[in-house]
Amino acid sequence: MSPKITTELLKQLRQVMKNPRYVQEPVQAYIVPSGDAHQSEYIAPCDCRRAFISGFEGSAGTAIVTEQHAAMWTDGRYFLQAAHQMDSNWTLMKMGLKDTPTQEDWLVSVLPEGSKVGVDPFIIPADQWKRMSKALRSAGHDLVPVKENLINTIWTDCPQRPCKPLITLDLSYTGVSWRDKIVALRSKMAERKVMWFVVTALDEVAWLFNLRGSDVEYNPVFFAYAIIGMNTIRLFIDGDRMMDPAVREHLQLDSTLEPEFKIQVMPYGSILSELQAVGAGLSPKEKVWLSDKASYALTEAIPKAYRYLTPYTPICIAKAVKNAAETEGMRRAHIKDAVALCELFNWLEKEVPKGTVTEIVAADKAEEFRSQQKDFVELSFATISSTGPNGAIIHYKPVPETNRTLSVNEIYLLDSGAQYKDGTTDVTRTMHFGTPSAYEKECFTYVLKGHIAVSAAIFPNGTKGHLLDSFARSALWDCGLDYLHGTGHGVGSFLNVHEGPCGISYKTFADEPLEAGMIVSDEPGYYEDGSFGIRIENVVLVIPAETKYNFKNRGSLTFEPLTLVPIQTKMIDVNLLTEKECNWVNEYHQKCREVVGAELERQGRHEALRWLLRETEPLARVQ
Amino acid sequence: MSPKITTELLKQLRQVMKNPRYVQEPVQAYIVPSGDAHQSEYIAPCDCRRAFISGFEGSAGTAIVTEQHAAMWTDGRYFLQAAHQMDSNWTLMKMGLKDTPTQEDWLVSVLPEGSKVGVDPFIIPADQWKRMSKALRSAGHDLVPVKENLINTIWTDCPQRPCKPLITLDLSYTGVSWRDKIVALRSKMAERKVMWFVVTALDEVAWLFNLRGSDVEYNPVFFAYAIIGMNTIRLFIDGDRMMDPAVREHLQLDSTLEPEFKIQVMPYGSILSELQAVGAGLSPKEKVWLSDKASYALTEAIPKAYRYLTPYTPICIAKAVKNAAETEGMRRAHIKDAVALCELFNWLEKEVPKGTVTEIVAADKAEEFRSQQKDFVELSFATISSTGPNGAIIHYKPVPETNRTLSVNEIYLLDSGAQYKDGTTDVTRTMHFGTPSAYEKECFTYVLKGHIAVSAAIFPNGTKGHLLDSFARSALWDCGLDYLHGTGHGVGSFLNVHEGPCGISYKTFADEPLEAGMIVSDEPGYYEDGSFGIRIENVVLVIPAETKYNFKNRGSLTFEPLTLVPIQTKMIDVNLLTEKECNWVNEYHQKCREVVGAELERQGRHEALRWLLRETEPLARVQ
Repeated sequence: MSPKITTELLKQLRQVMKNPRYVQEPVQAYIVPSGDAHQSEYIAPCDCRRAFISGFEGSAGTAIVTEQHAAMWTDGRYFLQAAHQMDSNWTLMKMGLKDTPTQEDWLVSVLPEGSKVGVDPFIIPADQWKRMSKALRSAGHDLVPVKENLINTIWTDCPQRPCKPLITLDLSYTGVSWRDKIVALRSKMAERKVMWFVVTALDEVAWLFNLRGSDVEYNPVFFAYAIIGMNTIRLFIDGDRMMDPAVREHLQLDSTLEPEFKIQVMPYGSILSELQAVGAGLSPKEKVWLSDKASYALTEAIPKAYRYLTPYTPICIAKAVKNAAETEGMRRAHIKDAVALCELFNWLEKEVPKGTVTEIVAADKAEEFRSQQKDFVELSFATISSTGPNGAIIHYKPVPETNRTLSVNEIYLLDSGAQYKDGTTDVTRTMHFGTPSAYEKECFTYVLKGHIAVSAAIFPNGTKGHLLDSFARSALWDCGLDYLHGTGHGVGSFLNVHEGPCGISYKTFADEPLEAGMIVSDEPGYYEDGSFGIRIENVVLVIPAETKYNFKNRGSLTFEPLTLVPIQTKMIDVNLLTEKECNWVNEYHQKCREVVGAELERQGRHEALRWLLRETEPLARVQ
Repeated sequence: MSPKITTELLKQLRQVMKNPRYVQEPVQAYIVPSGDAHQSEYIAPCDCRRAFISGFEGSAGTAIVTEQHAAMWTDGRYFLQAAHQMDSNWTLMKMGLKDTPTQEDWLVSVLPEGSKVGVDPFIIPADQWKRMSKALRSAGHDLVPVKENLINTIWTDCPQRPCKPLITLDLSYTGVSWRDKIVALRSKMAERKVMWFVVTALDEVAWLFNLRGSDVEYNPVFFAYAIIGMNTIRLFIDGDRMMDPAVREHLQLDSTLEPEFKIQVMPYGSILSELQAVGAGLSPKEKVWLSDKASYALTEAIPKAYRYLTPYTPICIAKAVKNAAETEGMRRAHIKDAVALCELFNWLEKEVPKGTVTEIVAADKAEEFRSQQKDFVELSFATISSTGPNGAIIHYKPVPETNRTLSVNEIYLLDSGAQYKDGTTDVTRTMHFGTPSAYEKECFTYVLKGHIAVSAAIFPNGTKGHLLDSFARSALWDCGLDYLHGTGHGVGSFLNVHEGPCGISYKTFADEPLEAGMIVSDEPGYYEDGSFGIRIENVVLVIPAETKYNFKNRGSLTFEPLTLVPIQTKMIDVNLLTEKECNWVNEYHQKCREVVGAELERQGRHEALRWLLRETEPLARVQ
């Protein structure tokens, strides 16, 4: 990996920073954030502006270029990668280290008095704008919106914004029609006394209209906005996608509809002017609902007194609670996914000893088996296929330079998942194809105990996921061990593999309470730098729990694993498990046998079935 | 309990709200918060202004009086009490209920356009002012500071502000001299580049100067402020307390000292003008450090650009980590406290069957036994002595109207503590003097399991207490039970029984990480409305833990119980305990025997010693 040479690019950028064609007044600094205009976690190539200007391709990072300096802020996951990919024009700002200045402090320290700092108002979220603007103002500088993105002015071979065909999802997948979703949304709007709701997140647009796309890799979304009024629906979307008869029929574009369900289709780029028109036409007390993470540009389109901002939108919260059709779809998807993994692990067991299977080969084979399953669309994220020391790199993705061969002497960690038309999967299994050491088994067993502690937890209705995080760590903590990531994230239904507003992590406090129908991952781990990585991840569904008593009639919840892939018993030190934990493993494996076994049988995959039966033999606990 | 008649008082208050002698312009509403000028949890009688105007005496509540209305906001603990104590002039606003408006929303709904809302700027914390002011301004009203407290203008028989003698604490109690504390504080100030630190919390003034007082019941503090500069020390305190030779010597007021340790003693009431003088004399970049909970009046004395506000002050954080002298003092105090409780429980065991012991009698007896111990000063809070259904009222305090007689048929809950010159105690034990039911034992055992889960927890350095809260609930949750309060609070060393910045609660997220030397309570419970209450509380010290491994060299922590009072084994269903839990109880009781037994022996309290030995017989677990 050699660094990108950015001398010429930076020179060009510094020129446009002073060019009156693009900026009203010269800006002394320009901020290039990671995101797109929808604050997406995964972005399209045309939105990889920060990677273009710096060479650094990690998923998180902010570049700031001044007349003299170019600096990149990123977190611990990416220190090495950023250092490799950037040339000497760039200073790496290691976030989380004590001596690293914040972006604001750094700007204040390097800028001449009374400077202007530019940023694309469509890319920066309103809450970040507010913080940055306040800090700069108090030091005598100004944060200014630069309408035309300055990177785009110098990015001559910038790829086109994707505009791929849409998939329509019928009721058997979604459970609720888009009309009924609009009705429910309007009732939430009425409750809060708002007249308009602006849909800015891509997965929220997709969910609301029961449409999917493929504009962004791994996330079945498409570039669009929507503005929902009490009597109007405006969908902002480009291309000839609305010419597709299936889409026209799905959205009833050519039907005679009650006016409040008539969708007005408008160009993607007209969102700002349309929203400004909405803003200009508001009567007193008419509020407009936006996410507080919506872009500064869209937020500013509505006069401050008329804005109603919340951290989670009503769509985000409704989307998180899966209905029966979605839950059933997720179950089906996870059974198919388990079939593919049984095939894979059976294959690996035979092939690894030959010494011909690399991390990339294994990842490709996993994709091949998944793609044989019905309704497979694509992977849900870049497969983490890692063996030995690579397993300790939590966000590892094998590339030719690091590609390691699987062997019978090393632990193999596979974190992978797929998009099926009926659901999204995300599963991690840690396997040994030879004989694990006592220490490896010990660590694996602590991780397993943490996994079970969350999966089997019973907790009252109204509990937030972050209150469960310590359960996953307790067995590790007892021995002085830990892992430096959260325990779980929300999972979409044929949508983004990471979604809010729920999760299981010590890091957040603002998560919404767990409720029946929500789906999260349960994925504790343990990582020994330079040696191995262990993670055990299931996707689990929040379900009501039966309890002996019922305090204040609150009701209780627990989790049902949707993922049904054997947990390698060879890695378990049974003597470290309690009887309850041992029973949990045996019951889980019994369910894998019954449910996945039946599907393997149905698909005629007899060898993988034999593998499954062997891997799910009950544990015998020494009394 | 009959309500206080407030018709005449409200009339008088409404008159002064328009009287130009007190207000520059008439105020249409006047806010009467609970607190004093130091944001104390416990307040002196002269600061009970909200109770004076409304009759409501609970510890939390805010009164707002307008020309037409009088409304009181309080939380679920006090709905009944407030309804009883207030007459029909008052509307009770039940906080936490869905339909209850916030103070801001209510004000906006009742005020005429362009109103002024008055409040004493010395009583309202700056952060509350900010929130309230913003909300009112956006609705066209103004929050205005009213310098003279309007309640004081009509409170003709307002008690004097207490001004009681001070206690000086020598090094054997404090471990660190006040001079060294000033040196350490100045080094923290230098780190943050601030020139001045304003001490506003009473316990912080007391801690910093190694002085104690008795101006507020239960809290050994005295009314004072301090301003610490890099070269100056100003102490704002009233009365002839500074004439006491012991205090003069302790503070070295008459010695020839380096100027930076020379304490300037000033009148309590001159803090504002002195701070304004400091504010006026600041050079650019000279900052003044204040708690963000300091009063609006003091915060405003410093121009905004010069303020450095933090949620926890450096004194708050230093005070929380007890040194060896303080820890040893706390140990001694807890042994003496255990002696008193062994005496009490032995006495109760004999007396309760006679039917002559009421909750008040038991509380008085507890105080009597405590007062026999060396260095006893006073109780650390109002004793919660509650039997049967009264035990389910979490903040119960027995009064003649509710006073219930202890019997062999009901559970008795005693939550009590004392101030000794060497430490502060706070302990809850739940006892049955007859035969508990299987259900009572079951609930008690779940609470005990939660208590042990926290007490025996091992967790990495840097862990915040709120991450341990769920451990205390897990056993209850498994059966559908829970309790609606936090699990623990910080405890002062011969200081306030509740102190920050650490604790164990699902409600906070901004607590500081636990570190060795911090002292917190561990007090899960279970409350069955109308029947009984159970709580098991120890004060525990954070200590380093030995672990098998040491991830990232972070080190681990655990707790050592300082409270050494038997947990009634009669209430335990041993079959619900794991072997580990059973061993914990037996080891805890063994320690009670050894440590408290030796002290009972030394004090010649042989009957109580026999009681202790009987109560600490090892549990036998059925295998």
